[in-house]
Amino acid sequence: MTNQQSSIDNKAQENTGQISPQVPPPPDGASNVLREVIASDPASVLERQKAFGIVPQNNAEWLAFIAADDEAKAKEVQAVIDEAAVSVERDEIEGVAVYHVIPDEIDPKHEDHLFVHVHGGAYVLGGGVGCVAEALVIALATKMPALSIDYRMAPRNPYPAAVDDVVNVYRHLLTQRPARSMAMGGSSAGAGISLSAIQQLIELDVDMPGALFIGTPGSDLSGSGDTFHTNQGVDRNIPTYDGVLEAMFELFAGGLDLKDPRISPIYGDFAGFPPTFLVTGTRDLFLSNTVRTHTKLRQAGAVADILVLEGVSHADYLVELASPESQLFLSELDRFFTQYLRFSSRPAEKVLARMSSALGLSLRLEPSASS
Amino acid sequence: MTNQQSSIDNKAQENTGQISPQVPPPPDGASNVLREVIASDPASVLERQKAFGIVPQNNAEWLAFIAADDEAKAKEVQAVIDEAAVSVERDEIEGVAVYHVIPDEIDPKHEDHLFVHVHGGAYVLGGGVGCVAEALVIALATKMPALSIDYRMAPRNPYPAAVDDVVNVYRHLLTQRPARSMAMGGSSAGAGISLSAIQQLIELDVDMPGALFIGTPGSDLSGSGDTFHTNQGVDRNIPTYDGVLEAMFELFAGGLDLKDPRISPIYGDFAGFPPTFLVTGTRDLFLSNTVRTHTKLRQAGAVADILVLEGVSHADYLVELASPESQLFLSELDRFFTQYLRFSSRPAEKVLARMSSALGLSLRLEPSASS
Repeated sequence: MTNQQSSIDNKAQENTGQISPQVPPPPDGASNVLREVIASDPASVLERQKAFGIVPQNNAEWLAFIAADDEAKAKEVQAVIDEAAVSVERDEIEGVAVYHVIPDEIDPKHEDHLFVHVHGGAYVLGGGVGCVAEALVIALATKMPALSIDYRMAPRNPYPAAVDDVVNVYRHLLTQRPARSMAMGGSSAGAGISLSAIQQLIELDVDMPGALFIGTPGSDLSGSGDTFHTNQGVDRNIPTYDGVLEAMFELFAGGLDLKDPRISPIYGDFAGFPPTFLVTGTRDLFLSNTVRTHTKLRQAGAVADILVLEGVSHADYLVELASPESQLFLSELDRFFTQYLRFSSRPAEKVLARMSSALGLSLRLEPSASS
Repeated sequence: MTNQQSSIDNKAQENTGQISPQVPPPPDGASNVLREVIASDPASVLERQKAFGIVPQNNAEWLAFIAADDEAKAKEVQAVIDEAAVSVERDEIEGVAVYHVIPDEIDPKHEDHLFVHVHGGAYVLGGGVGCVAEALVIALATKMPALSIDYRMAPRNPYPAAVDDVVNVYRHLLTQRPARSMAMGGSSAGAGISLSAIQQLIELDVDMPGALFIGTPGSDLSGSGDTFHTNQGVDRNIPTYDGVLEAMFELFAGGLDLKDPRISPIYGDFAGFPPTFLVTGTRDLFLSNTVRTHTKLRQAGAVADILVLEGVSHADYLVELASPESQLFLSELDRFFTQYLRFSSRPAEKVLARMSSALGLSLRLEPSASS
């Protein structure tokens, strides 16, 4: 921190940023589905805030905490896989565990595309088959194949293991298919790791994917940002930074400062980023993380679109899948992928066939001068 | 309100939405200019919140309050006009007072464009020459001519006077120039009135302007929305809805319900809207108003881009003009206008001259096979 910044902070020393946790009423601007969820939930936001204050005290406690969480998640996700019209298969690429997520039905426009998914879980949780949860949602909604990376995590493997795994898998995929046929991304920690991986790939001068998806990202893990204050005790999924969340970020950082640009990519460089779609909500603890990332991208000259959803907490769009908010997110993401993904080695006759059919359409629509 | 909604509100009855006013510290993600402003200001946010609680009690008090505010603003704006490289001339169109705002220097790409400006001021303030303040900022930054509409206001002229004036001026301009050569818009009340005017113009089947600018809009005047709670006592420009702000909205509504779609356009139809650029910030009391409008536009299939600025309160981008936040806003707005405005009756030779020069450039840039 510079001296100037520190003097600014001193001037504002009365402000601890501790706003009394109090959940606003369900907003009129949210869907009835989301309003019902919010209305039934305010007490549990406070309970969850207390739960987030409990931090495992040693390595054994961490490993037990992680194992319990991963096991529950795996059971839930496996049940979905068993019922859904999708195949999920474990594989290894460059020594990294990955899952191929292939919906039974593929949209022809996405037949050559691949969503390279980086899961969330606060840099510590969500390993094993549970890592595919978000990939399942997105692959099924967009009817597009996905590959979910089960990257190594803390406390066993702190930074840079996770980022290295994503970089290595992506570089391997590049030997098999054009860069612009792939989208990369994920939510929360998955978005933070994706940002770091892209920054590293740019440094390595590797071709960028056609599109990037950044959902409510861990772009600043230091807890700095307006909405860490204004949405404390408001976000129903992660009500507070203080406690287990910060502790998990410290595990990931493995001794590096939480403001180090390798840990918090918001402090890194955004020049050369691919077209990026971002999503957050008005109750999201990471709303500031998301809008700051969007602004950095725009300042760096990247194509970057952001969707901010009323009443939506951190990653709610993956939780309340029946909500119109989630449906809007999925259709906007699909539109973005469709706009920016390409398959440059597609045979010329396929492209020409499409073009002539489009020309035929426009000719048919042309108003006739003689009529 | 439907029975279902009312039952949802009852479930959440413990939540009054009254969050203790407490200003978060200056966020690391804001520029130093903005951080300094925020750091020097937290006490005054609370004072301003108290001031916003004081409401004129009768017509005479309102008129005195308005006259004092308009006079101070006019003096400030006139001083800028006298010094800046711009000409400002009062005129009348269809009986409505307007101001032509013509910068001395016009960007060639904007020479045929016009920004039709609708000023803010909570539907009651900002009349007279003071109405051009925002038009001056945007015209000088984009080097583009503007026309600022000094529409009629409450309490003398409640709804629909303001919207009618904007609609009538726009329809008159349409007799002189192509619709897509014009952008419309403004901030706060100006954005709310612009939304209502566009909705009315769509109903009248009138050609849409090429672009719309919607800054932190009065799209829901009923005080509904998450950030009326989470940013209460946080927004340094309009710290609270309760008090004079709500009272001014009631004056504008002139007896209509604040949730009437004619008063709060968020409850109206968004089909057929032109490409729209929106801006807000993480401390904005109207952040929810802005993101809800963006979402409605996207759901209706419109082109709509939103910029959410860290640390920025209601319309700060017009207040802290030296801040990088304001500069980013102005350059993004210029980019948006440049992308979507057209002058369709431009002589063909002008268009062709540009095209051949662009082709020449691309030929010169083409890598030579023989070199």
